Amino acid sequence: MNNTIETLLNHKTIRNYKKDDISDELLNNILEGGIRASTTGNMQVYSVIVTKDQDKRNELCKLHFGQKMVEDAPVILTFCADFNRFNKWCEQRDAEPGYDNFLSFVTAAIDALLAAQNVCVAAESEGLGICYLGTTTYQADKLIDFFNLPKGVVPVTTVVVGYPDEDPEQVDRLPMEGVIHHEEYKDYSKEEIDNIYSFKESLPLTKQLIEENQVENLAQIFTDKRYTKKDNIHFSNVLLKVLKDQGFMNND
Amino acid sequence: MNNTIETLLNHKTIRNYKKDDISDELLNNILEGGIRASTTGNMQVYSVIVTKDQDKRNELCKLHFGQKMVEDAPVILTFCADFNRFNKWCEQRDAEPGYDNFLSFVTAAIDALLAAQNVCVAAESEGLGICYLGTTTYQADKLIDFFNLPKGVVPVTTVVVGYPDEDPEQVDRLPMEGVIHHEEYKDYSKEEIDNIYSFKESLPLTKQLIEENQVENLAQIFTDKRYTKKDNIHFSNVLLKVLKDQGFMNND
Repeated sequence: MNNTIETLLNHKTIRNYKKDDISDELLNNILEGGIRASTTGNMQVYSVIVTKDQDKRNELCKLHFGQKMVEDAPVILTFCADFNRFNKWCEQRDAEPGYDNFLSFVTAAIDALLAAQNVCVAAESEGLGICYLGTTTYQADKLIDFFNLPKGVVPVTTVVVGYPDEDPEQVDRLPMEGVIHHEEYKDYSKEEIDNIYSFKESLPLTKQLIEENQVENLAQIFTDKRYTKKDNIHFSNVLLKVLKDQGFMNND
Repeated sequence: MNNTIETLLNHKTIRNYKKDDISDELLNNILEGGIRASTTGNMQVYSVIVTKDQDKRNELCKLHFGQKMVEDAPVILTFCADFNRFNKWCEQRDAEPGYDNFLSFVTAAIDALLAAQNVCVAAESEGLGICYLGTTTYQADKLIDFFNLPKGVVPVTTVVVGYPDEDPEQVDRLPMEGVIHHEEYKDYSKEEIDNIYSFKESLPLTKQLIEENQVENLAQIFTDKRYTKKDNIHFSNVLLKVLKDQGFMNND
């Protein structure tokens, strides 16, 4: 087991941060690690916005549903799919960009996400903690206003970075055979589903959550409380409108 | 500079592989690193399909536009956004899943991509080489047939893994200030675009490519040869149809 794999295996999401700054040198090293991630055709069709200013983080915190770590942690990184820069370059070179469509958004989002994960790995290897904010896609329209993002730019994820002020237990994962398929996709029997989720369902934390949420089981916490159909449909339409408004839905 | 950041900074895409197998133990370690990546709400809404069989790799090679490394490298990993397993679990628990919409696809795709990048970092830390296949999104419909993927499952990227049979020069990246923004998104002036792309445009490889492709400049290689508007529109519609067929576009 080498140090890098150890870093990956020791990952824990951190939600409580010290107010300590991250030095410019360290932040720079981490971001350098990010921009070395694979990128489609070496186009690097993403941008990263670094938010350190306390007032801006307070505002950003509200947009991320009040998740307090956005105020507390010293650095917030917003990763955007970005064809704006590439399109401008093409236009300045008498080349006609054809990147105002859905595939181009997906390409740029993939670039942004691979860079984000490299940044997280680099940060954790230096003793920093990280947390991804899923609220980024829900609030993409408001983040576009906040950062004044031009056409061709869509935020896809946000990473909170800072020095951990907690040392939580590592959370569970499904057993490997639950997520890895060999040679073909083997669809799941009823028994296999029961087996894959049995460890998660048996955890004391799960029992506590079921009690707190007054539901029958863990699955209902997801469907009825955390990620409801109503919210998902609402945010699906927000995100599809964002893609249209930012110029990524000209598919004919 | 620690070992992990060094691994990230030394990344090179590998396109020529030895036929040597990867041991089960090593492959397992790498995949363990992958499933430790952050995942929305700890749902792990992705699957990884491992292809090692030579006949299957030969078939898969054709689907990936004949990129020979798919035949040569011992392991091909197809990362899929996957709500099928989660939906089945919900249904078995009297919980009604609301994950047949666009936001849920994006959520699952993010999960899949973060896991993929962890796998790549783990692989490279062990001296293996990797290459992402962008053809995955273009050929999602055909890959769904090939792997017989049920509703709720969409391939989003593929990673070729094996022992390198080449040691290429590391490719360029845009300067940091080209992709990182501080506090706000600073849109690019004409001069800034020229500066950001000047190093890339000055490279001997760029000059060679321009000559080979008989175009005026590097930007035109992208717009006229590699990633054309016509192809992008075609594959956008393929991918949108795939999302619909796999049950991710019920947004009302």
